[in-house]
Amino acid sequence: MQTKFPSESLTILTDLVLPGETNPLNNLFGGELLARMDRAASIAARRHSRRIVVTASVNHVAFNRAVPLGSVVTVEAKISRSFKSSMEIYIDVWIEDRESGNKTKANEAIYTFVAVDETGRPVEVPQVIPQTDEEKIRFDAALRRKQLSLVLAGKLKPSEATELKALFIQ
Amino acid sequence: MQTKFPSESLTILTDLVLPGETNPLNNLFGGELLARMDRAASIAARRHSRRIVVTASVNHVAFNRAVPLGSVVTVEAKISRSFKSSMEIYIDVWIEDRESGNKTKANEAIYTFVAVDETGRPVEVPQVIPQTDEEKIRFDAALRRKQLSLVLAGKLKPSEATELKALFIQ
Amino acid sequence: MQTKFPSESLTILTDLVLPGETNPLNNLFGGELLARMDRAASIAARRHSRRIVVTASVNHVAFNRAVPLGSVVTVEAKISRSFKSSMEIYIDVWIEDRESGNKTKANEAIYTFVAVDETGRPVEVPQVIPQTDEEKIRFDAALRRKQLSLVLAGKLKPSEATELKALFIQ
Amino acid sequence: MQTKFPSESLTILTDLVLPGETNPLNNLFGGELLARMDRAASIAARRHSRRIVVTASVNHVAFNRAVPLGSVVTVEAKISRSFKSSMEIYIDVWIEDRESGNKTKANEAIYTFVAVDETGRPVEVPQVIPQTDEEKIRFDAALRRKQLSLVLAGKLKPSEATELKALFIQ
Amino acid sequence: MQTKFPSESLTILTDLVLPGETNPLNNLFGGELLARMDRAASIAARRHSRRIVVTASVNHVAFNRAVPLGSVVTVEAKISRSFKSSMEIYIDVWIEDRESGNKTKANEAIYTFVAVDETGRPVEVPQVIPQTDEEKIRFDAALRRKQLSLVLAGKLKPSEATELKALFIQ
Amino acid sequence: MQTKFPSESLTILTDLVLPGETNPLNNLFGGELLARMDRAASIAARRHSRRIVVTASVNHVAFNRAVPLGSVVTVEAKISRSFKSSMEIYIDVWIEDRESGNKTKANEAIYTFVAVDETGRPVEVPQVIPQTDEEKIRFDAALRRKQLSLVLAGKLKPSEATELKALFIQ
Repeated sequence: MQTKFPSESLTILTDLVLPGETNPLNNLFGGELLARMDRAASIAARRHSRRIVVTASVNHVAFNRAVPLGSVVTVEAKISRSFKSSMEIYIDVWIEDRESGNKTKANEAIYTFVAVDETGRPVEVPQVIPQTDEEKIRFDAALRRKQLSLVLAGKLKPSEATELKALFIQ
Repeated sequence: MQTKFPSESLTILTDLVLPGETNPLNNLFGGELLARMDRAASIAARRHSRRIVVTASVNHVAFNRAVPLGSVVTVEAKISRSFKSSMEIYIDVWIEDRESGNKTKANEAIYTFVAVDETGRPVEVPQVIPQTDEEKIRFDAALRRKQLSLVLAGKLKPSEATELKALFIQ
Repeated sequence: MQTKFPSESLTILTDLVLPGETNPLNNLFGGELLARMDRAASIAARRHSRRIVVTASVNHVAFNRAVPLGSVVTVEAKISRSFKSSMEIYIDVWIEDRESGNKTKANEAIYTFVAVDETGRPVEVPQVIPQTDEEKIRFDAALRRKQLSLVLAGKLKPSEATELKALFIQ
Repeated sequence: MQTKFPSESLTILTDLVLPGETNPLNNLFGGELLARMDRAASIAARRHSRRIVVTASVNHVAFNRAVPLGSVVTVEAKISRSFKSSMEIYIDVWIEDRESGNKTKANEAIYTFVAVDETGRPVEVPQVIPQTDEEKIRFDAALRRKQLSLVLAGKLKPSEATELKALFIQ
Repeated sequence: MQTKFPSESLTILTDLVLPGETNPLNNLFGGELLARMDRAASIAARRHSRRIVVTASVNHVAFNRAVPLGSVVTVEAKISRSFKSSMEIYIDVWIEDRESGNKTKANEAIYTFVAVDETGRPVEVPQVIPQTDEEKIRFDAALRRKQLSLVLAGKLKPSEATELKALFIQ
Repeated sequence: MQTKFPSESLTILTDLVLPGETNPLNNLFGGELLARMDRAASIAARRHSRRIVVTASVNHVAFNRAVPLGSVVTVEAKISRSFKSSMEIYIDVWIEDRESGNKTKANEAIYTFVAVDETGRPVEVPQVIPQTDEEKIRFDAALRRKQLSLVLAGKLKPSEATELKALFIQ
């Protein structure tokens, strides 16, 4: 099976925060941001696999900064690593200052998707070849996250989660 | 500071799946479900703390079963454990069969909220006293999840994450 | 045909009031509340009948109190009485004070649904056995409301609306 | 205080039924129709009173015909009668056949609004002078409906509801 | 083929501006107004042709006045001229002052639709007979706009756009 | 005043077409596409000017291809030319084939925005220096479009619209 670079799946969704998308504190409503990230991430997974994709899990979302009404928000989604038929998509969310044009990181999130055929059966997806330093760090960490989720789900013995275990035993 | 039972924060959001809330496969759109869970979980956090609450992170969401158009979906959110000013909210999502009335589990999710005062500064929240067996299991696991997220964020040395470490070293 | 208790159809829809759901006075928009009640009530009718249900009429909705932006709103729907294939659903709407946790009644509403088979033909539904005092009062009043709507529609002679007529002639 | 004709408050809201506004049977979702009627009726009440208006109650809505996806729906709202500060708004809903252009009645509804000043205190509104036959019939019936709602709320003795009582005693 | 008057296609969509439909300056969001005009205009095109219609182009929309939150907005759409299977729809948008009831023009727009049969093939539509002075002016200008759009698309030589050319050469 | 390249304002909004955003033919609803283009174009105008911007007009939108449910749609907005305080934004809309990854052009649109200060008064914006061939062609055509809109609005004599006139007189 062929391989692909993370940059081939890069998906950019730049949009405004309008009043109908805020919470009572006048910041972007958390649920709306989760929905936008799901849309962008599923497109990235589809671009990597060229298959129908379904959301398997949301592994981690950190809401570090509130996103105020009227902001320009950029959601960037890119594959970090693939496993057989599943794909970990890493999402960065940026806010842009109107006057200076400076962008600051507001949130990060990790979603997992599975590629399926028309009957809903999982199908194999291309392997990922990370290129930049950031892509390499995320590629390595994705394996530990995969092991962790298998351990937490009781599908992998902690003693067999080699890379993850190494974190705890030096 | 006073203590509270998980049942005191129980929040139930039962609703339909209408066509405007589906994905192209005619199932509930993932982003819409994430938004409903965020709404229910934030109410549970508010009921526990009686404070303004803000979403800090989505720690885990597993999409085990698709939720078809026309379903009756019940989102149940309840606090599992609190730490100083943060609260872990555990969410169970059920679908109900129209003819038999049977409910089956469709998804589980874990969100974290922080209680703040009017100026946005974190404030202490009541401790949680788990009562049922499930509440006790979730209460214990919440500590390991807390340690894990601190380790992954580089804020806690793996060697100091006592309960988590025990998973890997027997 | 079997009978059922009102509690078996109880449907709870607890949700927030976000800015995109308000009117220009910053209160929950009436149309949005009507929609939430319709969703909860149709689920209650479906739980009672285990059939496809369609809204037949909205018999009465009193907007006693405005529901401000940021409120936690609980819509509780429960069957009050059934007639052959139609079901009267009684809806109570509560607002919850964040600090004290006290709930106050904001609205009441009465909707009627009809159970139908796959071809759209009305089908019989279980009778209702009221249990609490409130359920008994609503069960009795439902008959007078039924007679009233038949009288107003010209389908029942006022002289034959025994229970209703008794209100006017002592 | 001045008087006004019903035609001066006539409000027309013609719109499509798009997929995001349907129920799982592919007809206009009841809650969406209730919301459209609320919007049109509140504009009619505002045109009659030239005041801020708030929804006081939904007195009756009959869903006689389902409104299929893709329909052109016309909601027509017009005042039927005013009482001191409250206004009864009568709403007719029409569907239009694309090929013949024929309109058929799909629903009728009656909403009540109250006119208030900037501080929320009820203010007097113009009296209504009905002109057409239909307007006269609705004007007369509005008084009986008003008496009925007072009787049902326990604010008027049945024996004093003269016009309503006459229905039951000949 | 038969002919029709512009008044036969007149479509009125009167609605409120609620908070969920505004931009960060608390005025009606441009995209929402474009959507309402598209809905009204497509109904007008359908009323003229009694056919399925699809939006072919938006030729011109001038946003002359902001429409503030809480406004009553009336979108009036009417055919100005038809060409074989295409129809130019002229849209006027009015805002209404609550206290005086005065209406002022907020926007104008011109959309073009094409009538198609069930297979998507363009079909002929009735010719338009303008009646009022305004209708006649718009009918004449529609021809120049048609020529202009053909010239700009490179489908008509400027020298053959007789009516348009006359504007530039006296 | 400084100058800027079109590429500095490039705004990309990639998103899905979900069922709640379609018309009855299961294609992206025209009004929804107009709204997405308005959002992307206003961000591009803001990036060029670093000012508050308001939509002045929609000059042209051609709906060449329907966008089916489930599509990945990319809206790309970039400034084509600026005049004192107004900016012409050119928008290209692409659909992407899931299997091949090929992109095809679905629509083009031209919107005009004005930059204003906090009091709503127009302010000067940077001049545009086109770089690519396409940017140069659009830059030149923008002047003719500007003249045309002034002529049609009666604010410029046809004889003075030099560049536009040249189209008609060789």
